[in-house]
Amino acid sequence: MPSKTVEADQQRKLEGLTKDSPMRLRMESFVKQMQQEVTSALEKVDGQATFKTDRWTRAEGGDGISMVLQDGAVFEKAGVAVSVVYGMLPPAAVAQMRAQHPNIGKTDEALPFFATGISCVIHPHNPNAPTVHFNYRYFELGSDEKGEPLSWWFGGGCDLTPTILYEEDAVHFHEVIKRACDEHDPRYYRDFKKWCDDYFYIKHRGERRGIGGIFFDDLDDKSADELFTFVRTCGDAFVKQYVPIMERRKNMPFTDEDKHFQQLRRGRYVEFNLVHDRGTKFGLLTPGARVESIMMSMPLTARWEYMHEPDVKAHGRLMEVLRVPREWIPA
Amino acid sequence: MPSKTVEADQQRKLEGLTKDSPMRLRMESFVKQMQQEVTSALEKVDGQATFKTDRWTRAEGGDGISMVLQDGAVFEKAGVAVSVVYGMLPPAAVAQMRAQHPNIGKTDEALPFFATGISCVIHPHNPNAPTVHFNYRYFELGSDEKGEPLSWWFGGGCDLTPTILYEEDAVHFHEVIKRACDEHDPRYYRDFKKWCDDYFYIKHRGERRGIGGIFFDDLDDKSADELFTFVRTCGDAFVKQYVPIMERRKNMPFTDEDKHFQQLRRGRYVEFNLVHDRGTKFGLLTPGARVESIMMSMPLTARWEYMHEPDVKAHGRLMEVLRVPREWIPA
Repeated sequence: MPSKTVEADQQRKLEGLTKDSPMRLRMESFVKQMQQEVTSALEKVDGQATFKTDRWTRAEGGDGISMVLQDGAVFEKAGVAVSVVYGMLPPAAVAQMRAQHPNIGKTDEALPFFATGISCVIHPHNPNAPTVHFNYRYFELGSDEKGEPLSWWFGGGCDLTPTILYEEDAVHFHEVIKRACDEHDPRYYRDFKKWCDDYFYIKHRGERRGIGGIFFDDLDDKSADELFTFVRTCGDAFVKQYVPIMERRKNMPFTDEDKHFQQLRRGRYVEFNLVHDRGTKFGLLTPGARVESIMMSMPLTARWEYMHEPDVKAHGRLMEVLRVPREWIPA
Repeated sequence: MPSKTVEADQQRKLEGLTKDSPMRLRMESFVKQMQQEVTSALEKVDGQATFKTDRWTRAEGGDGISMVLQDGAVFEKAGVAVSVVYGMLPPAAVAQMRAQHPNIGKTDEALPFFATGISCVIHPHNPNAPTVHFNYRYFELGSDEKGEPLSWWFGGGCDLTPTILYEEDAVHFHEVIKRACDEHDPRYYRDFKKWCDDYFYIKHRGERRGIGGIFFDDLDDKSADELFTFVRTCGDAFVKQYVPIMERRKNMPFTDEDKHFQQLRRGRYVEFNLVHDRGTKFGLLTPGARVESIMMSMPLTARWEYMHEPDVKAHGRLMEVLRVPREWIPA
C-alpha cells in the first residue's frame, strides 16, 4: 500500500473520536496531536532547524512516528516519538507485571498487550539551558471474553536535567506541573514528585539524573476517562513548563568550563538511560523494537573522565541538589 | 597505618612466592607485575604522558591499584587496574554461579568469595589506531572444612576494537594470542575465539563490539597450576599483540570523517559496556564497589546520531566484519 494511503487510513481512524471511543484510539490521537504541538513549539525556539519525520511499522504489530531535530541553532538533539505497539507479551514479561496488576491472574501463557505513548528528550547546546524529558503512555494487558483488557494503566512524567542550576527554572518547571496535578488530585504532585526523585536515582553514583519533576506508573486508581484527562492536562502543560526557560537561557554566554561540565553530565545521562531506565531496557528486550527510536534519547556527545571532581564554586549547588533532592514548592 | 607501611607489608606478602604458595597470592603477584609492565610499555608508545596511580581499599575487604593516563600524545584514555576483593557473596549471586560450579552445592546462604584480576581498556586518539581491552582474573567461592575453596576458576581474554579496519592488524592480534593458546591446549584458541565473538555481541545493534580475540570464563578443566601458566602466557602476550599495531598506526594521517566515525563507534562501546558487559554489571551491583574503577573503561568522548549510516566506501569493510565475524587465521 503506498504510504500516502496508509496515512490517510490512519488519519480516518482517529477522526471523530468521542468519549465513547476506545481509549486506545483516544490516547493515540492525543499523543499524535501533542507530537505536532511540541515539535512546532520547539522549532520556533530553535528558529533555524526543523524536525525530520520518520514513519515506521513494526512487523509484529504497530507503527510509529519519530521526529528528530539534530544540530540546530539552539538544540543539539531533540527527539519526539510516538508509537502504537501491540501483539503478544512473553510469559516472563507478564510475570513481571503481575505484582502491580493482580487482575491479570496466574498464567504461564503469553498475553495480548497494547501500548501507545509519546516520549521526548531535548538536549540544547547552551549549558545554561537544561535538558528535558517527558513521556506519557497507556497500556493494556490480557483480554476477557468480551475482548476487554484484564488490566489497563497510564504512566508518564516529566523531568528537568540542568548543567547549571537556576533555582527559578526548577521552581517554574515544578510549579506548572503541580498546577496540572492539583486539578485532578491533591496528592498527585506530592506522590509523583517523590516517585520521580526515586526513579531517576543513579544508584552507583549516589546522584539523581536531574532536579526532578513527576513520575507515575501503573496508574489505574480512577476511571480511565478521568486518568486520560489527567494525562492530557500534564501533556498540555509541557510547552508552558519548558519554553519560557529556554527563552531566557538559550542565548546566555557560557565558559569552556561550563561546556566541559555539560559533557560530563551528558555522560551521566547515558549511564542512567542504559543502566537503569525501564523504558530503554524494556525497549532493547522487545523483539522487533526499533533501536534508533530507543536510542533517540542519547545526547549527541558525552564525556567520561576518571576521577573528575566538579568545581565546587561553579557547580557545587547543582551537585547538592542531585545528591539530596529539594522541595521546590513549599508545602 | 601510614600508607608506606601498608605498601611495604603488601610487598612482603608477595615476595618469595613458590609453586606451593596459595594461588590467591600467586595470581595477585602476577597481575601487579603485569600492570607495571603494560603501563611502562604504553608510556613508551605515548612518549609524553605518564600514568597516574591511585591506591584504594574496600571497607568490606580488599584493595586495588588503578593506573590511568588521560589526554596523552597518543592515548585519549588508558586505564590499567588490578584489584583483590573478598568477603561474603549474597545468596542471589551465589545462585547465579551454581549452574557453572556444581561443587558449590545447594545453599541459601551467602558464601565467602575471593577475586583478583587485572583489567585494561585503551582508547587512542588516532582513528587508525584501535581500542583494545584485556582482563585476566581468578575467582574462589565457598570454603570446605580445611579452608579450601569449594570452587575456583580463571577467566579472561583480550579483544580489539578498530574504527578503521586493517586486516593485517586483526591477523597479527589473533596470531599472537593463538600462539599463546596453542602452547597449552589445541582447542583453546578455536573455542575461546568463538566465545569472544559471541560475548561481545551488541544484540540490539546486530553488531559485535570489535574484531574479537579470545574470551573464557569458569575455566577449571585442568589443574590450577596449569591454568595459571596459561593465563600468564596470555597476559605476557599482550604487549606483543598491541604495541606493534600502535607503532604503525599512531601517527597516520586521518580525515574529519574518520574522527567522526570513531566517536560514533565509541558510542557503541559505551552501549556494550553499560547494557551487556558482565564485569560492569557485576561491578555496579557489588556493594562498596569503586565506581571510578568500573567506569575507567568508558571512552573520554562518545557520540550518538539518529539514523547514522556508515559510509560504505570508508567503513563498509569494518561493518561487515562486525556483523559476520571472520576467521582471521585459516584453520
